[in-house]
Amino acid sequence: MLIKVINANTSPAMTATIGRSAESIVAPGVEVSAVSPAMGPESIESHYDEALAVPGVLAEIAAGEQEGADGYVIACFGDPGLDAAREIAHGPVVGIAEAAMRTATHLGRGFSVVTTLDRSRGRTWDLADRYGVSRFCLGVHATDIAVLELDSDPDALKKVISASRAAAEADGSDAIVLGCAGMSAFCPVIASEIGLPVVDGVQAAVLLVQSLVQMGLQTGSMGEFAPPLPKTYTGLLRDFERR
Amino acid sequence: MLIKVINANTSPAMTATIGRSAESIVAPGVEVSAVSPAMGPESIESHYDEALAVPGVLAEIAAGEQEGADGYVIACFGDPGLDAAREIAHGPVVGIAEAAMRTATHLGRGFSVVTTLDRSRGRTWDLADRYGVSRFCLGVHATDIAVLELDSDPDALKKVISASRAAAEADGSDAIVLGCAGMSAFCPVIASEIGLPVVDGVQAAVLLVQSLVQMGLQTGSMGEFAPPLPKTYTGLLRDFERR
Amino acid sequence: MLIKVINANTSPAMTATIGRSAESIVAPGVEVSAVSPAMGPESIESHYDEALAVPGVLAEIAAGEQEGADGYVIACFGDPGLDAAREIAHGPVVGIAEAAMRTATHLGRGFSVVTTLDRSRGRTWDLADRYGVSRFCLGVHATDIAVLELDSDPDALKKVISASRAAAEADGSDAIVLGCAGMSAFCPVIASEIGLPVVDGVQAAVLLVQSLVQMGLQTGSMGEFAPPLPKTYTGLLRDFERR
Amino acid sequence: MLIKVINANTSPAMTATIGRSAESIVAPGVEVSAVSPAMGPESIESHYDEALAVPGVLAEIAAGEQEGADGYVIACFGDPGLDAAREIAHGPVVGIAEAAMRTATHLGRGFSVVTTLDRSRGRTWDLADRYGVSRFCLGVHATDIAVLELDSDPDALKKVISASRAAAEADGSDAIVLGCAGMSAFCPVIASEIGLPVVDGVQAAVLLVQSLVQMGLQTGSMGEFAPPLPKTYTGLLRDFERR
Amino acid sequence: MLIKVINANTSPAMTATIGRSAESIVAPGVEVSAVSPAMGPESIESHYDEALAVPGVLAEIAAGEQEGADGYVIACFGDPGLDAAREIAHGPVVGIAEAAMRTATHLGRGFSVVTTLDRSRGRTWDLADRYGVSRFCLGVHATDIAVLELDSDPDALKKVISASRAAAEADGSDAIVLGCAGMSAFCPVIASEIGLPVVDGVQAAVLLVQSLVQMGLQTGSMGEFAPPLPKTYTGLLRDFERR
Amino acid sequence: MLIKVINANTSPAMTATIGRSAESIVAPGVEVSAVSPAMGPESIESHYDEALAVPGVLAEIAAGEQEGADGYVIACFGDPGLDAAREIAHGPVVGIAEAAMRTATHLGRGFSVVTTLDRSRGRTWDLADRYGVSRFCLGVHATDIAVLELDSDPDALKKVISASRAAAEADGSDAIVLGCAGMSAFCPVIASEIGLPVVDGVQAAVLLVQSLVQMGLQTGSMGEFAPPLPKTYTGLLRDFERR
Repeated sequence: MLIKVINANTSPAMTATIGRSAESIVAPGVEVSAVSPAMGPESIESHYDEALAVPGVLAEIAAGEQEGADGYVIACFGDPGLDAAREIAHGPVVGIAEAAMRTATHLGRGFSVVTTLDRSRGRTWDLADRYGVSRFCLGVHATDIAVLELDSDPDALKKVISASRAAAEADGSDAIVLGCAGMSAFCPVIASEIGLPVVDGVQAAVLLVQSLVQMGLQTGSMGEFAPPLPKTYTGLLRDFERR
Repeated sequence: MLIKVINANTSPAMTATIGRSAESIVAPGVEVSAVSPAMGPESIESHYDEALAVPGVLAEIAAGEQEGADGYVIACFGDPGLDAAREIAHGPVVGIAEAAMRTATHLGRGFSVVTTLDRSRGRTWDLADRYGVSRFCLGVHATDIAVLELDSDPDALKKVISASRAAAEADGSDAIVLGCAGMSAFCPVIASEIGLPVVDGVQAAVLLVQSLVQMGLQTGSMGEFAPPLPKTYTGLLRDFERR
Repeated sequence: MLIKVINANTSPAMTATIGRSAESIVAPGVEVSAVSPAMGPESIESHYDEALAVPGVLAEIAAGEQEGADGYVIACFGDPGLDAAREIAHGPVVGIAEAAMRTATHLGRGFSVVTTLDRSRGRTWDLADRYGVSRFCLGVHATDIAVLELDSDPDALKKVISASRAAAEADGSDAIVLGCAGMSAFCPVIASEIGLPVVDGVQAAVLLVQSLVQMGLQTGSMGEFAPPLPKTYTGLLRDFERR
Repeated sequence: MLIKVINANTSPAMTATIGRSAESIVAPGVEVSAVSPAMGPESIESHYDEALAVPGVLAEIAAGEQEGADGYVIACFGDPGLDAAREIAHGPVVGIAEAAMRTATHLGRGFSVVTTLDRSRGRTWDLADRYGVSRFCLGVHATDIAVLELDSDPDALKKVISASRAAAEADGSDAIVLGCAGMSAFCPVIASEIGLPVVDGVQAAVLLVQSLVQMGLQTGSMGEFAPPLPKTYTGLLRDFERR
Repeated sequence: MLIKVINANTSPAMTATIGRSAESIVAPGVEVSAVSPAMGPESIESHYDEALAVPGVLAEIAAGEQEGADGYVIACFGDPGLDAAREIAHGPVVGIAEAAMRTATHLGRGFSVVTTLDRSRGRTWDLADRYGVSRFCLGVHATDIAVLELDSDPDALKKVISASRAAAEADGSDAIVLGCAGMSAFCPVIASEIGLPVVDGVQAAVLLVQSLVQMGLQTGSMGEFAPPLPKTYTGLLRDFERR
Repeated sequence: MLIKVINANTSPAMTATIGRSAESIVAPGVEVSAVSPAMGPESIESHYDEALAVPGVLAEIAAGEQEGADGYVIACFGDPGLDAAREIAHGPVVGIAEAAMRTATHLGRGFSVVTTLDRSRGRTWDLADRYGVSRFCLGVHATDIAVLELDSDPDALKKVISASRAAAEADGSDAIVLGCAGMSAFCPVIASEIGLPVVDGVQAAVLLVQSLVQMGLQTGSMGEFAPPLPKTYTGLLRDFERR
């Protein structure tokens, strides 16, 4: 089984982190291919960045269909391009936000999300509403660490631990959800520091895709998520045309 | 006042229709600039098409900022790129779906949306939920006319009229909302045929933008919708980088 | 085009303020007629006041139908009598609460309402629920200024500015909605003081009615909002009888 | 204990029916005073009628406070003037729609409302939403019997029985709620005919008020429902002024 | 009329308190039988306790059917076994949480629940959601008094009074709902101390059952709440088998 | 890793089916222990049956803690005893309804549940609401096959296939969720017959538990789901007492 894990930004360091995290958890015999798109922003910290990360994500899905991928993870907490990806992949596609938040609903009454910048909180609430988990999402908390600083700031882990502890206390939550793929490596340390379950979307999503593939479950393709109709694409994006 | 109306697909015929509809309703002294993006799909009939229409829409917003546009309409019923556009435009940005559906809430208990393909119905429900109008949206009905056939199929108007009449009856609705920018020119004929108010999102949105500009109202730019942070963009999309 | 703007209370000073605010924003050729009812409370600060303001509002609507009004604004933030007014007016009727709150949804993730007395906050939440904007309404804040003191208290503007600033900060909102028609004149000053968009329902509503009339949109009159059935009315209210 | 039951319309026949229904169910020692207002519409079949029934209802509440009433029922399925009445009554005030619908939630998964005219259905849904019972309200069905015809049409009972049976079957409901005070006398016959519990709001409300009074429960009067502030009332409604 | 009031725990002192509270409020001629189950936990302070209180409650319902009970109250604020009880009782069954919370909705905009342990708050929110009263439930507050300490701790009343006062202030609520049957006797003192209506679920429920019986209303028994199908039960619970 | 799969009814045939289904999907090295409770109903077809299945389920969880189970599946589509089980298990506990319905949300816009008896439909809707998936649950359809007939009725598979096909068509759904553990073996045949993904909760839940255990995720145990407080249990259930 081949699962393609697509880091939606172009940062190779974060892709490596994500890849290691995914590989360390899959079943024997499952291959993980962690990639960055060939185009787009180096980090995703606005609706603008997210919108422009989507073409690169979709190009990786299209390539994955050639490469024989059995399923896909979109490894960015905004789940960019998820609906579109489901139309062009024959196997299942899971975003790390949906995987992490739905996984956390099985751990108690509710969870707190700990994320990077304050301006990203709105997107998380939108996704929580859309995925039907807003009842379980007791708070979304920013650390004010930029995405790429998760790697470069030596205090990043310390800040995320302290934000997680504060969030759990303020919200009375049963679990923490890490709101950025770049925090994946921090997961076990935070859990052991704060004494609560901590959900990393990368691992949650890759295991979910592995399970879906094992069960033979794919996106339903007879209605809204059927392959896109063929039509002319022009300009910069002409190569995205499907025939 | 300059309002830029962006048809999210690359069909020049539809852009012309949209432009005429917008121009015919704005106040004296308001200039309408109706454009198609320089890249992307010729029509939007899937999540995939919609995702890939977004870069072209955002490029037109960015150009509009240079051209001195005071506000923007995104003229596609999926409101593609709306959140991202709000981050990079200094003036207001309104999608035709939000404009049409919110306008229709002032006309009675509820409305029916009449749209093109069955597979587009889900996106409309998503937007209705997100905009808080699902209580007013009593039904979303497909005509099974492809977007570009609205122009080319001689029976298109007749089919939309009959679908509108059937929708109003089935849903007991007080108004019809046209679920595609390409139906804009049909609006007065349908209204007179079925005897109910019919809302065209293009006109509703352009008047709403005009009103917002007149009142000096712009997207709040101190939080989630502040300008995107500068960062490296690579590959095909490198020109979208903001400094 | 004649738009009748009905201040739901009997205070002539507030009617004058409302009239000036409306007149200053409509298109050339649109006439505004700002009136107070001939009966009812001098200000609306309870459910009781609001209920008893309704007959006067409806009498003005009925008169407006004789006067040739093309549309109506109900200029009180409780939108008193809105559903009833829609049954007896042939043109559109818009309340300032629905206009202001729906307008503000186009400006970002959410808004804060700044109102007069604490006891009015519940009504605002009821309307936010009913109009489908409670997701966008991040807080309703009282200034503890009575309605008529907005005019007479020399510190009223200062208090509203400071309440608006505090509300925006507490709620993390992208815009302020003024929760009383009597605050209409304060709007531009508050906006410039706090650096956020401020929505005045009087201007939002009068522009919305103007737009609806331009688009030929009226309340759907074939179902719930058809003209009331004729029947005997007795006592004090016998003149409200419709034949 | 004195419970005042206010039929919100001016039809004396319906007031008599309502009075008999209420009197037959209260505890020994509880006095029921069933009245019609001195002003307003003879039946309530539109938002307009309902709005104009409110002053008469409020006048009866004010009189009731002089007469020593311990609690009130507003006996019209639109619950007209409920919030306002709660501000001026020292004892509890209950509408028959809230009483009937909340009572029915204790009888199974859900109920169907059977009402008079089709145009009244919207108001019922509004109330169901507001009272938090829309999850239990499985359908609202019109009989197309006008309110006063309930008394005069010899087939009225037969039609209500057949609509109730059809509603229960269509909705799979566990109970029927009668959606008009004028149907009160029909209640036992319908129940025995269709073999399902049938809830009459008049009896449900009068028993609820009796229970509230017995428990010493009144509307909370320290916030939103405190007595209205004194202020000038003018014109036709000057006598409603409170000092 | 015989109403059986089932304290869901096995504490005889609490059963006596509950019985006195119920008896003091019912109409002349209504007999109250207050009982504890013959099996289960002495107090209910977890989901585990609640689940294991259910068989005892159901055994009491089954016995009640033999004893000729006309209706039942389940006197524990988690309403344990309510749906199951409705299937095996021919008369109405009401839980004190549903009775208390629905009663409180008639007293203003919203109420605060004051309960025992912090860990019980989640269950209260679940019930509020399920009963459709979460809009009215403005807060759930723990006193950190264990259930059996309500009886034994001499400061219990004082603590509940002070928690009620704090809750009302923090939530701006119009009424207090007592979140444990064991607080029933405290009700009048708290009300007089804090000057707000205080709802005791035991009295609210017993009066509600009395009213339902008087109106001839029972659980609808033709669908979901029909008597359970006969089938083999084994082991410890074999006597619960129904034939 | 040991996962205990608890069939909530006492039917050994169904336990065997469930066990085979679970065993066939887990990773190498994961042991499945499929059991029936020692007490309770042979099938669960009412709220009464479900309530009385809970003690047996909880006894199996308690035994599992002695046996060294790492996680648990409650294999009945009503998820009986889930909250209580989470308090007494140190590892994760997942119900098949939550697992199946949440899994299906990753496969498109929505799913249809196909279940046994009509009277079980309400419980499914309750769970869909509670788990936040009611937006995705497009319909719940009964086959009118009793639980134990799934095994004994030679036409059972045919009936479930035809109900699944009809449900997908009526609801326009992207996937089918099997609403009874006893249908587990039918899953692949139905999927291949109807050409849509079909989700079996047994496999979905066992893979989810396996994933949770691999990620080191357990129920948060510092708040609502902490171990139950020790206290006296009496009568038939005295052995459930925890010290």
